[in-house]
Amino acid sequence: MWPILKCSRWRLGFLIANKHKHNFFSRGMASSNKSEFLKVYSVLKSELLQDPAFDFTNHSRQWIDQMLDYNVPGGKLNRGLSVIDSYKLLKQGKELNEDEIFLASVLGWCIEWLQAYFLILDDIMDGSHSRRGQICWFRVEKVGMIAINDALLLRNHIPRILKKHFRDKQYYVDLLDIFNEIEFQTASGQMIDLITTLEGQKDLSLYRLPVHRRIVQYKTAYYSFYLPVACALLMAGEDLENHVEVKNLLVEMGTYFQVQDDYLDCFGDPKVIGKIGTDIEDYKCSWLVVQALERANEDQKKVLSENYGKTDQTCVERVKELYGDLGLQEVFAEYEKNSYEKLISSIEGHPNRAVQAVLKSFLGKIYKRQN
Amino acid sequence: MWPILKCSRWRLGFLIANKHKHNFFSRGMASSNKSEFLKVYSVLKSELLQDPAFDFTNHSRQWIDQMLDYNVPGGKLNRGLSVIDSYKLLKQGKELNEDEIFLASVLGWCIEWLQAYFLILDDIMDGSHSRRGQICWFRVEKVGMIAINDALLLRNHIPRILKKHFRDKQYYVDLLDIFNEIEFQTASGQMIDLITTLEGQKDLSLYRLPVHRRIVQYKTAYYSFYLPVACALLMAGEDLENHVEVKNLLVEMGTYFQVQDDYLDCFGDPKVIGKIGTDIEDYKCSWLVVQALERANEDQKKVLSENYGKTDQTCVERVKELYGDLGLQEVFAEYEKNSYEKLISSIEGHPNRAVQAVLKSFLGKIYKRQN
Repeated sequence: MWPILKCSRWRLGFLIANKHKHNFFSRGMASSNKSEFLKVYSVLKSELLQDPAFDFTNHSRQWIDQMLDYNVPGGKLNRGLSVIDSYKLLKQGKELNEDEIFLASVLGWCIEWLQAYFLILDDIMDGSHSRRGQICWFRVEKVGMIAINDALLLRNHIPRILKKHFRDKQYYVDLLDIFNEIEFQTASGQMIDLITTLEGQKDLSLYRLPVHRRIVQYKTAYYSFYLPVACALLMAGEDLENHVEVKNLLVEMGTYFQVQDDYLDCFGDPKVIGKIGTDIEDYKCSWLVVQALERANEDQKKVLSENYGKTDQTCVERVKELYGDLGLQEVFAEYEKNSYEKLISSIEGHPNRAVQAVLKSFLGKIYKRQN
Repeated sequence: MWPILKCSRWRLGFLIANKHKHNFFSRGMASSNKSEFLKVYSVLKSELLQDPAFDFTNHSRQWIDQMLDYNVPGGKLNRGLSVIDSYKLLKQGKELNEDEIFLASVLGWCIEWLQAYFLILDDIMDGSHSRRGQICWFRVEKVGMIAINDALLLRNHIPRILKKHFRDKQYYVDLLDIFNEIEFQTASGQMIDLITTLEGQKDLSLYRLPVHRRIVQYKTAYYSFYLPVACALLMAGEDLENHVEVKNLLVEMGTYFQVQDDYLDCFGDPKVIGKIGTDIEDYKCSWLVVQALERANEDQKKVLSENYGKTDQTCVERVKELYGDLGLQEVFAEYEKNSYEKLISSIEGHPNRAVQAVLKSFLGKIYKRQN
């Protein structure tokens, strides 16, 4: 009965070896060991398959096993690995013991689990076809809408993992709180994205910069940039309330990261980014269309409203041509330069050297990225 | 853009007045005041719409407002009200102060929020059409698959509510843990239900009593019966680890409750239960089909496999006829009697009088229920 046996790409070995998975963590700094990190995944999976809170049947244990392998470890693992990297930097180069590396890895995996949960559901809501080089989980034979419940299980694994490994830590309740808060913010960001797209289809002029910013900040920046560092800070014994400035800076970086994503979706090299962008076809509230609307005259706005959100390739090309006419490549280059300078200057104003190192390492990894 | 303005049944006033909503809490004991309880809903909704963790637009605030009214308060509210009732009984008739009633109501609403989250997603997974006398949320115009994210928001509201009202309580972390554990168990029960139905469609003989029991226990009993009492126990300062027996008894009662549900789906009066059952058409692993399979000879098994899971009313009638031939009404009456006696005797063996009262009140509400 196992749905994924038909699909050749699910094996963990494949995922590790997948040459298309570039890791921006290989830039600029010694990155945490990916294969060591993947060993922790195996430990967590085994524990979940033996969780005493549920009386598994063999069938259900196999289902979960394969669902996890299909959905959790196949991404670039940037978010997860960055918990370990950030924690190392916070410890200012002091050698970490095995236990510390394990715990930081566990928190890293919790973020990867969170991401997998969001992606399964996002793909259903967007009607997507592929994800990370394989077909979307809900499109796998026999899975279908069971994918919704699988996503809930992934989400529910996070507190199971946290309870098992952190219940006796002083910061346990803060960990629960931060995962809850950030999941709430991400789902809220997804909500405004969904309802904005619903409205935008009738009136493109609703795609404005503050809307775009709000979507990006909540939907991506909090969980991708702030959450890994928040986890590392908690492990290092810090009170998150003393690090509002760090949060703000990471949310800024996450916003810059998503603007790059929007840009690469249209202007990146599909061979390098590993997918063919469809933001134009999908009527996305992308940074590019927002910038275009700000600069377009009445005729150009008409071109946009006639061609945006259509799958016809002539329409897509017409939109891209207009982006060129409006000089959006230069607008992006200018935005990138300004963002970098502003971020560097803010980071250097931060009083704590170790925190500065964490923030700079994040910025170094994303500045001028091509994928 | 507001999707539900087209639907006349969403208003809270209507929901309160809805005559079809029988409340089994009106049986046997003074029930908590439903209109007082609904006032707490309004307070919680207002707080969520002003949550500082998210920068709402007017659109998104209105969306949430209407999504909440449509999905949260329209049920029988049994689970929510039973937190207050249980807490009162644990306090052995001592008058509760306003703060205590408010906090017990808040926990009650958290269970109602949890239920609403599950129901939205269950309806999508089952392809259902109506729920609580109105069309399913995902079928409301303009909602569609956004309903998935709405369900996540409901789920995420629970820790927001808990944090706001219980962060300074000694039992805050236990509350987070119990809600997490029970959500995990419910989603796990839903998983075995889904994959059992997938398998059962090829081989009906997989529908056996232990499978049925496992589904019912995890999918329904934990959150509907144990969670309300667990919340009341925590508020009363109890350690849940000292109440494993209470948990087991409530899970037994929840199992009995679900068997009744399966029975009424086929043999109940649609006017009294408020819906027309479709378990036979939907190929459900119902207690009735499990009992039928245990008793059927080869010919009768053939009748079942040829007629179960078909929407054709002749097939449905053929299955019901077979249930009659196998004497399932009498089997159920016997099961009901035995369950009651066993439960009463276990309850009377419990050393704590207040806990006995809580358990008896639950049993009194469900014994021989017709809806």
